[in-house]
Parts: sequence; C-alpha cells; structure tokens
Amino acid sequence: MNANTPSVLARIDADLDQSLTRLFDLIRIPSISTDPAYKGDCARAAEWLSTELAGLGFEASVRPTEGHPMVVAHSKAATSGPHVLFYGHYDVQPVDPLDLWTAPPFEPSLITTEDGTRAISGRGSGDDKGQFMTFVEACRAWKAVAGSLPVNVTILLEGEEESGSPSLKPFLAANRQELSADIALVCDTSMWDRQTPAITTMLRGLVGEEVEITAASRDLHSGLYGSAARNPIHLLAAILAGLRDESGRITLPGFYDGVPELPAELKDQWQRLPFEEKAFLGEVGLSVPAGEAGRSVLEQLWARPTCEINGIIGGYTGEGFKTVIPAKASAKVSFRLVGEQDPDKIRDAFRSYIRSRLPADCQVSFKEHGGSPAISLPVDGALLGRARRALDEEWGKETALVGSGGSIPVVGDFKRLLGMDSLMIGFGQNDDRIHSPNEKYDLASFHHGIRSWARILGAFATA
Amino acid sequence: MNANTPSVLARIDADLDQSLTRLFDLIRIPSISTDPAYKGDCARAAEWLSTELAGLGFEASVRPTEGHPMVVAHSKAATSGPHVLFYGHYDVQPVDPLDLWTAPPFEPSLITTEDGTRAISGRGSGDDKGQFMTFVEACRAWKAVAGSLPVNVTILLEGEEESGSPSLKPFLAANRQELSADIALVCDTSMWDRQTPAITTMLRGLVGEEVEITAASRDLHSGLYGSAARNPIHLLAAILAGLRDESGRITLPGFYDGVPELPAELKDQWQRLPFEEKAFLGEVGLSVPAGEAGRSVLEQLWARPTCEINGIIGGYTGEGFKTVIPAKASAKVSFRLVGEQDPDKIRDAFRSYIRSRLPADCQVSFKEHGGSPAISLPVDGALLGRARRALDEEWGKETALVGSGGSIPVVGDFKRLLGMDSLMIGFGQNDDRIHSPNEKYDLASFHHGIRSWARILGAFATA
Repeated sequence: MNANTPSVLARIDADLDQSLTRLFDLIRIPSISTDPAYKGDCARAAEWLSTELAGLGFEASVRPTEGHPMVVAHSKAATSGPHVLFYGHYDVQPVDPLDLWTAPPFEPSLITTEDGTRAISGRGSGDDKGQFMTFVEACRAWKAVAGSLPVNVTILLEGEEESGSPSLKPFLAANRQELSADIALVCDTSMWDRQTPAITTMLRGLVGEEVEITAASRDLHSGLYGSAARNPIHLLAAILAGLRDESGRITLPGFYDGVPELPAELKDQWQRLPFEEKAFLGEVGLSVPAGEAGRSVLEQLWARPTCEINGIIGGYTGEGFKTVIPAKASAKVSFRLVGEQDPDKIRDAFRSYIRSRLPADCQVSFKEHGGSPAISLPVDGALLGRARRALDEEWGKETALVGSGGSIPVVGDFKRLLGMDSLMIGFGQNDDRIHSPNEKYDLASFHHGIRSWARILGAFATA
Repeated sequence: MNANTPSVLARIDADLDQSLTRLFDLIRIPSISTDPAYKGDCARAAEWLSTELAGLGFEASVRPTEGHPMVVAHSKAATSGPHVLFYGHYDVQPVDPLDLWTAPPFEPSLITTEDGTRAISGRGSGDDKGQFMTFVEACRAWKAVAGSLPVNVTILLEGEEESGSPSLKPFLAANRQELSADIALVCDTSMWDRQTPAITTMLRGLVGEEVEITAASRDLHSGLYGSAARNPIHLLAAILAGLRDESGRITLPGFYDGVPELPAELKDQWQRLPFEEKAFLGEVGLSVPAGEAGRSVLEQLWARPTCEINGIIGGYTGEGFKTVIPAKASAKVSFRLVGEQDPDKIRDAFRSYIRSRLPADCQVSFKEHGGSPAISLPVDGALLGRARRALDEEWGKETALVGSGGSIPVVGDFKRLLGMDSLMIGFGQNDDRIHSPNEKYDLASFHHGIRSWARILGAFATA
C-alpha cells in the first residue's frame, strides 16, 4: 500500500458529509441532455464541475462542442507512474413518467430503502453523478493530505452520454494529444453485489434506430376510411413483431454473423457465480426469462445480442377514444451487440428488412441514434492487477471479473481514437433504478467508492 | 310544397350572414368532451345553445348528467303532423396534432379551398356544430315567417358523442316519455357528393377497446435487462399484428358470425354509383385499397366489418433516445360492425384472444369505449319519401340512398330505448377532414342544409 493511503482514507471518512453536500448540489442541476429544454442546465452543470476541479488545483476548463460542452481537467505534477484519463458524464436521463417518482427527481436526499440500505436518491445519483464524484472526492482527499495526486490525472466529463454522444468522437479526434494517456478509467459500471467489487471486461455494443412509417397524407376517420386505407400503426406493429421469431431469435438476415459461442471455460465460471435467476427477475416482478430459448439469463445479458423496442407512438393516445387512422406511426428500436457484430451492417439489415416489408403507398424514414461495436478487454494487464488488489483490500472480498449487458461506447472510442484500453470500475448496484423513476445510489457505494479510488491511485503510483 | 315554405326560404337567404355569425360564436367554444380540461367549455356550449333555443321560443333547458350536460328543447304548438326529435352533438374531437392546423382550430373563418369551394373552417365546423345548426337556423326562419313551427319538434343535443356517449342511454331511459316522438332526425351524415343529397339507410356498428399490457414492475434499462425481461411493446405489437391475416381478414374466432354477403341487387346498385376508387384514395395520398382482398372499397366501407388500431403508446417517445424496457404499453383498438354482429361477443372475443396470447409474468387490463350494433333502416316509409322529395327539390338532383362506414350509436339507442326509427340526413362532404386537422364545412352545405330542413319541416306538415 502507498504510504499516504491510510491518511487519505481517514480524511475521506472525516469529510464524507461535505462530499455528500457537494454531490447533492450537482444532482440539483437537471442536466437532461436529450431534451433541448434543459440545454442551459447542462451548461450550468459543466460550469459547476469546472469550478470544483479548478478549486482542487486542476487546470480545468469548459470546452464547447456542437452540443453540450465537455469538461477537461489536468493534474500533471507527478513525476512517475502512469498517466490516467478518468471519464464520466454529467448528463442524466429524462425523468418521465414523473408520476411514479416518490420524491421530486432533482431534490436529492439520504433515504433508507425497504431493506434498510442507506442511499442517495435522485435522477443522476447512480448514473453517473454519484459514480464519477467518487473519483473527484478521492482526488480531493489526496490533494488535502499529500498536496498533490500520486499519478498524473486527466479528467474528461461529457454531457451527451444519455443522448448518443454525438460530439464525443469529434472531440477526441480533435484533442488526441491532450487526451491520450496510459489507460482510461471508466466508472459507469456496477459491483457484482453489495459486498463484491467488480471490474468489467466485456461490454455489449449498441445500435439505436428511430423508424417512422407514413401512409395517408393526413389523419383519417376510421369510419370513413377504415380497412380501405392503410393503417401505419398496424403495419409498424406487424413489422416490429417480425423482428423476433417464436424462439426469441432475431430474424434479420446475417444478424448473428460474428456472434461467438461462449467458451466452455467462461460458461463454467459464470455458472459458479452466485447468481439466482429467480431473484434477479423477481426483484422487478418477473419470474421467467423472456429472450432466446435455451440461454441462461447471464449469457443473454453478457454474451448474446438483443433487439428491443424502446418506444412506440402513433394515433390518439390521450384520454378517451378517437376513431382515427393516423397518417404515421413511429418507434425507437435498439440492438445490443456482442463479439464481432458490425454496427453498420446491422443498421443496414434493419433498414433493408423494413423497406422489404413496406407495402404500396407507404414511406419510411430513419433516424440514427448512435452505434458502437462490442468490447472485450485483456484481463492480464499490470494496472488491472493493481486495481484488483486495491479493490480486494477495500471491500475484503475477491474482485469479480464480469461482463456487462450495457454498452459504454466511449470505451471503444478510446481504443480506436486514442489507442488506449480502459479499466471499467464502478460501484453501482443492480437495484439503482438507473433510467427509471426513483433512481438511487447506495451511500456505501459512494463512501467506499471514494476510498476505492484513493487506494487505486495510490497503488498505481507504487512500483 | 307547404304554402309558407317559399317565404321561409327567402328569409333564410336574407339571414345567412347572421346565421354564420351565430355558428362562429358556437365554434369558438372549445367543447372537447374527451379531455377533462375542457369540461367547463362543454358546459358553456350547452348554456349557449339552451339560451339560443329559448330565444327562438323553445322550452329549453340544460340537463345535468354524470358527464357533460344534455340540452333539451321543445316546441309543441302544432296541432297536426308528426312529432320529430332532432338529434345533434355539441362536443368536438381533440385537435392534436395541433402543428398541422393552418389556422387555430377554435378561430373559425370563411375560407376558399384549393378547388375554389367556399367553406367554414374550424374544429366542429363539420362534426357536428355546422350540421346541427342547419336545423336550428331552419327553425328560426320558420318561427320568423310563420310565428311557429309547422310540426312539433323536440331538439336533443348531447355533449359526449366524441367520447363514447356514456350518459346517453341512461338519459334516454330516464326520460323516455319526454323524448319519444314519431321519428328521429339525425344529421351526422354526408351528402353523396357536392351536388347530390343523400339519406343514409345503413350504418356500421362500433366496439371501442383500450388494452394495456404490463410486464415488469418498473421501467428497466435495456442494457441490464434486455432479452431476459419481457418487453411489453414487442408483445403488444405481436398481438395486435395477429388481429389480421395476410389477406386482411380479421382473425378473432367467430368474428364474421352474422356478417351477410352483400345482396347482388345492392352490389349492382353500388357499382353503378359514380364512385372512383382511385380518386377517393388519391385525395388522401393513397392508391391501393388496403383491407380484405377481393372486396371493393365501397363494400369494405359500407358492408364489411373492420378492425383498426387507433392509437398506440409505450416506452420513451420524446426527443432523442432512451434505452428503456418499459413496464407497460397500451393501445386503442376499434371494430366497425355490420349485419347481425354482436358488440358484446366481439368485445369478448378480442379480450379472450389477447388473454390467450399473454405469456407468463404479463398482466392485461381493458377499458371499454362504447359498443353498438350495425343499423339497417326501412327505405319505404312515408316520412322518408317526403324528405327525399324535399331534398330532390332543394338540390335539383335525385337523392341517393346510401350506406355509411361510420357508426352513429344513437340511432340504435333510439330504436331500442324509444322504439323510434331515424332519418339520417346530413350535408357533410368526404373532404371535410372531420377528426383531422383543418376540419371545414362547405358554405353551400350550411346554406342549402338550412333550406333543406326548412323544406322537410314544411313537407312533414303537409298531408
């Protein structure tokens, strides 16, 4: 252990209330990136973070993009050890349906959940403000105790992660020199369970598509036109329903090209993990896995591709009834990718499939919402080994090396654009309700997350 | 012709500007019955009408119901001739999508359409305020010229026609004596074309259903749960897609019970009608009929049952993208009925079909939005003959006896609850865009509609 680490940990414990106050201030800024109405709040969150980091002695700046700004901060006083790039995002998901929140989403507080866990409530508490503030607070404690950080650190915080990160690639490409480091630290992941820390080494990729089908030139009265006029809702429903067959397999031609069968060794390891399918599904009111027949839940979530309809709308959806045949209907569809699946080919296959099923008189338009391939990281690097031991020490349990069903496109971007691997270490829990009403972040995740990063920074500096 | 009719017609021509002013005042009241936000406006429309009718010497009153009020008005000074019950509705459809209106929906004006037709614009201009005000203005002219109406008249105006008329049947049942008459006049129908008046003798029935499917107990992140958790949008899409087979036939068991094949005679008559499928579909941007294979458009619209999805919503439908698996998804579905199809059996078949396709972990709930059987009226009655001749005289063309694809449940209610047949006479046009943005009502429909009713009232009084 680094000689300074014990004092840094003690400082973190003593400063926890102030750390929480700062996190609450940040959560109060409703930085919803996907909704243009919150543009000013995104800018305000970036300014707040830049000011905080400058206060810690970072050379910090808010950097404009075509969308929401980036925050970049450097601390480069160390003369040895690796240079790390820490990545997080200050934007958050929309809050609808608002009526399912038990407290206003942007008024954070400390709560006690049904099972007695202390947690921080609010939109962004778990995804990603609470997560990345663990690193910022670890830096604060190191600066307070040792006067400087044990390794060189660059922090990059973006504001468009929840809306497809349109500005990220151009920004990385334009600032390659400034942002390149020995390794990236990405914190948008979860622990295995409340006791067991995890490093994520496999991530699924993502293709997001929006499709709109138009038939008649205007909305029609179903009494005057019903049957004779094409109904785009019915057509869209039929086309989307056809994306999966009876066994849950996705029907797009070539979809499974590049999808590897899980190696027997990994399959065995995953089967040994303490994972109860029933409990996992039961926590959200389900009992039976719904996807591809014959695949375990963990295999489906970490190693199999998916297709999900994330939103659909058409016709009259207000109170009461309206016998309308609408002119158009639309849906948002996403694919999670694994192995060598190619996002561009899958987007093409999706669009071709829809065009091939379009009858006379119908038009289709598409909108792209991001695309990234799956990621698989080497599990034998020296820094990964040090991070793993630091986590073992903080949590008193062996760190799990796991896959993740989610997609973190930035990890692929760091690899392709900056030639840099990422260590994915985060302290979220499966029940954090990220992207859902009543999002939370465990107080223990926050506290021991800060301590974990403090240990990791110290361990990186030790030869 | 009744001796007073020529003077009444002259009075109508002279008073047309004032008639328009009154109609505009009524259209300005946004009496959207399906949206609780407009409850006060519905009440205001009822008060306005009651005051107008009282001013014409009717014994008029606003009658509360559990929903929006009824307006009932009597004029019973005539000592001979039939007693007629005139029915209309003062409520209107919602106005979304608002951005497709070229003028605010509740600011009526006289416009000239692309083909040079003069028309009254605004929500409710065609459905049903313009239509029923033709009758009110005809009564006004009769009162002004003759001091009284030539026959006894009761006017019933409801405020819930566009939201399933939940209060109508109880109100008819509770006021059977007061509302019973020799015949009902129902004005919610169209002319055959701009030159040819029509009396509608066949109406399709309607079953409206709202279905909501719930899977998980909360919205889920598709990265963390995708595939393994049931997606209710996908399920709903698959179930709704299955309502029709490849040939456009509706798949519910027993659905076609009681659907008669069209008699050869009627089929021949309809084929002789000047109806161009291409022009009818082309007017709304379509070219190919979409419904049951092997049926003409007119047959599909007047004599075949339908199933239409009128609205669907689920998941994230705002700007941008959100990788959510929602907890629920819902749709509004309607069936148009013909012949002896039973609304209750069809509702049951729909609900059974959905329940039969529901996998583990999913719940379904239904909401009823109205139900009525199809109607077929005798075409050989004496009053129908007089109305037909009055229309022939006003328009200078032979009146067509036609079917209608729409449903007018009140016609069935009058028959069952008050033992009364209805004459369905209206002056709408196919391009009135009722239920759509930019609704209008031809100025000629309004002017000659008033004159038509004046002639019909006079003709009814003549032995």
